[in-house]
Amino acid sequence: MPAKEQLARLVGDAMFDSDTCSRWLGMTLEEIRPGYARMRMPVRPEFLNGHGICHGGLMFTLADSTFAFACNSHNIPAVAAGCSIEFLKPVQGGDELMAEAHEQVVSGRHGLYDIRVTNRVGEIVAMFRGKSAQLKGQIIAADINQPTGAKTAD
Amino acid sequence: MPAKEQLARLVGDAMFDSDTCSRWLGMTLEEIRPGYARMRMPVRPEFLNGHGICHGGLMFTLADSTFAFACNSHNIPAVAAGCSIEFLKPVQGGDELMAEAHEQVVSGRHGLYDIRVTNRVGEIVAMFRGKSAQLKGQIIAADINQPTGAKTAD
Amino acid sequence: MPAKEQLARLVGDAMFDSDTCSRWLGMTLEEIRPGYARMRMPVRPEFLNGHGICHGGLMFTLADSTFAFACNSHNIPAVAAGCSIEFLKPVQGGDELMAEAHEQVVSGRHGLYDIRVTNRVGEIVAMFRGKSAQLKGQIIAADINQPTGAKTAD
Amino acid sequence: MPAKEQLARLVGDAMFDSDTCSRWLGMTLEEIRPGYARMRMPVRPEFLNGHGICHGGLMFTLADSTFAFACNSHNIPAVAAGCSIEFLKPVQGGDELMAEAHEQVVSGRHGLYDIRVTNRVGEIVAMFRGKSAQLKGQIIAADINQPTGAKTAD
Repeated sequence: MPAKEQLARLVGDAMFDSDTCSRWLGMTLEEIRPGYARMRMPVRPEFLNGHGICHGGLMFTLADSTFAFACNSHNIPAVAAGCSIEFLKPVQGGDELMAEAHEQVVSGRHGLYDIRVTNRVGEIVAMFRGKSAQLKGQIIAADINQPTGAKTAD
Repeated sequence: MPAKEQLARLVGDAMFDSDTCSRWLGMTLEEIRPGYARMRMPVRPEFLNGHGICHGGLMFTLADSTFAFACNSHNIPAVAAGCSIEFLKPVQGGDELMAEAHEQVVSGRHGLYDIRVTNRVGEIVAMFRGKSAQLKGQIIAADINQPTGAKTAD
Repeated sequence: MPAKEQLARLVGDAMFDSDTCSRWLGMTLEEIRPGYARMRMPVRPEFLNGHGICHGGLMFTLADSTFAFACNSHNIPAVAAGCSIEFLKPVQGGDELMAEAHEQVVSGRHGLYDIRVTNRVGEIVAMFRGKSAQLKGQIIAADINQPTGAKTAD
Repeated sequence: MPAKEQLARLVGDAMFDSDTCSRWLGMTLEEIRPGYARMRMPVRPEFLNGHGICHGGLMFTLADSTFAFACNSHNIPAVAAGCSIEFLKPVQGGDELMAEAHEQVVSGRHGLYDIRVTNRVGEIVAMFRGKSAQLKGQIIAADINQPTGAKTAD
C-alpha cells in the first residue's frame, strides 16, 4: 500500500476511534483514501421524525461525518466551514444509508467535497456539499514508516 | 390567544409528540407561532466528535427540527427540500444550544426559513437556511374550535 | 448521431438563439449533450469590479447559463430553483472562462447539476451547484425527424 | 452624521467609483451604512434570457454587488467566499430591481449577509446569502476627519 494511502487509513482509524458521536449513531467507516471516504449507517427507530421517516438531520450527520473523514485524510486537520444538502427521497426506518465523499478541489487552505447518500437499493436520497478549512498541524505523527500503534490503536 | 396562534401551538404539540428523533436527542419545543419556532437541546457527551467538540450534524439536526416546526406551523404539511448551514464557532460538551426559526418568505408552495443557533452565553454558533415545500392536506383537523385532544396529546 | 444527442443539440441551438443575455455577454455554447453543456466567455473590461478583478456575478452568470443549457437538454423546460457558488480564485481581465455542467441526479421533477468554472490555464476558479425544477411541455417540437429549421436556426 | 456612518458612505463612494461592472450594468448605490447597503438596477432588454425573463445571473449580480458594499462598509476589505441564491419569482423586462443587504453576523474574519431582491411592486423575487472573508488593510485612509475628496469623487 502506497504511503499516502496507508497514512489516510491510519488517520481514519485514529479519528474514528475518538469520534464518539459517529460510533454512537452506529456508523462504520468502510473505506478511506486520500480525498475519499465511505461510511454506512443503519436507520434506527430512534432516527424517525414526526412523519415516520428518517430525520433529515441524521442523514446530514452521516454525510457530514463522511465529509470529515475525507477532508482529514491528508493528515492535515480540517474543519467544516459550511455545508449544504438537498433531500431527494424520504428514507424509511430499517433502511441502511451509505455515504461516499469525493474531494472536488483543494485551493489554498479550503477544500470542496461532494457527498452522495444512497439507500439500500442504491437510490440517491441526498446530495451534500461541504467546504472545509484546514488548520495547522497534523492529526497523527507523520513518520509513517514507523506508525506507533499507540496513537491509532485502542 | 388568536386562532392562528392557537392552531400553531396545537400543530407543534402534535408534531413533537410523534417526533421520536427530536425527543430522543433531548430537544424541547419552547415556543411555536405561525412562521416561528424555538427549540433547545443540551449537548450530551455522545454528541462529541473526534475533535472533542459537538458534531456539526447534531447542530444541524437541532436547526432542522426547529425549521420543521416553523414551516409546519400553518397546519399545512411541509418538508425540507434543501438546507445550508454555516458553522461559526465550536461548541463544547455540557453547553446548551438554542435554535430560533423565522419565516422569511412564502412564495407559492415554497418557503424560506432562517435559523440561528446560539450557545448558552448567546453567541451565534451556526446559521442555517432551509427551503420548504408544502404538501397537500392538513396536519391536524382544522376545526380549531373543537381540537380533538387525542391527536394533540397531554 | 443518436436521437437524444441530436435533440439536445437542437434544443441548445434554439435556446441560445433566443438567449439575448448570454449572447450579449459574449458567451458561446461549445457543446451540449443530454445532461451536459459547456460554454465559454472572455472576461471583458466591463466585467471588472472595484478590486480590478472579474465581478463574481459575471462568473455566476456564465455558470448559470451553462446550467440552464444542461438542465434543458432533455427538451423538457426547466428553470433554476436555487444555486450556490464557491469562489476559489480571482479572475483577471483578459482571461477566458470555461464552464462545464454535469447532471448529477434527476429525481422526480427536480435535478441537481454541478458546474466547474475554469480559467485559461485550467485552474478551477469557481464551483457552482444548481437545482432545477421541470415545467410542463417541450422546448422544441419533439418530432426530431423533421426539426423545423426556423426555431433552431444556424 | 456619526463617524462610522460617514466612513461607510466614503467607502461606498470610493468603491462604486471604481466598480466598472456595477456601473456598466446600470446599478445605483442608494444607501450604505455599517453592515447595510441598498442598490437598484433597471432590467434592460439585454438582461433577458431564452425564456424572455431576466437572467438569474443578473439578479445574482445585483445581489452580489449589494453584498460587497455591505461587507466592505466597515472599511476593512472583504471578498465573497461563497453565495447561495433562491429564485422565487420570474422578473420581466422593464421592471426595476432593488436589493437590500443586512449583516447577520461577523465572527472572526468571516461575515454572513442576507440580501433580498424585490421587484417594482415590492415582491421578493430572490433571496441571497453571502459569506465574506476579510483581508488585511483598509479601503480608504481611515483618518476620516480629513477624507481626501479625491478618492471619493463627486
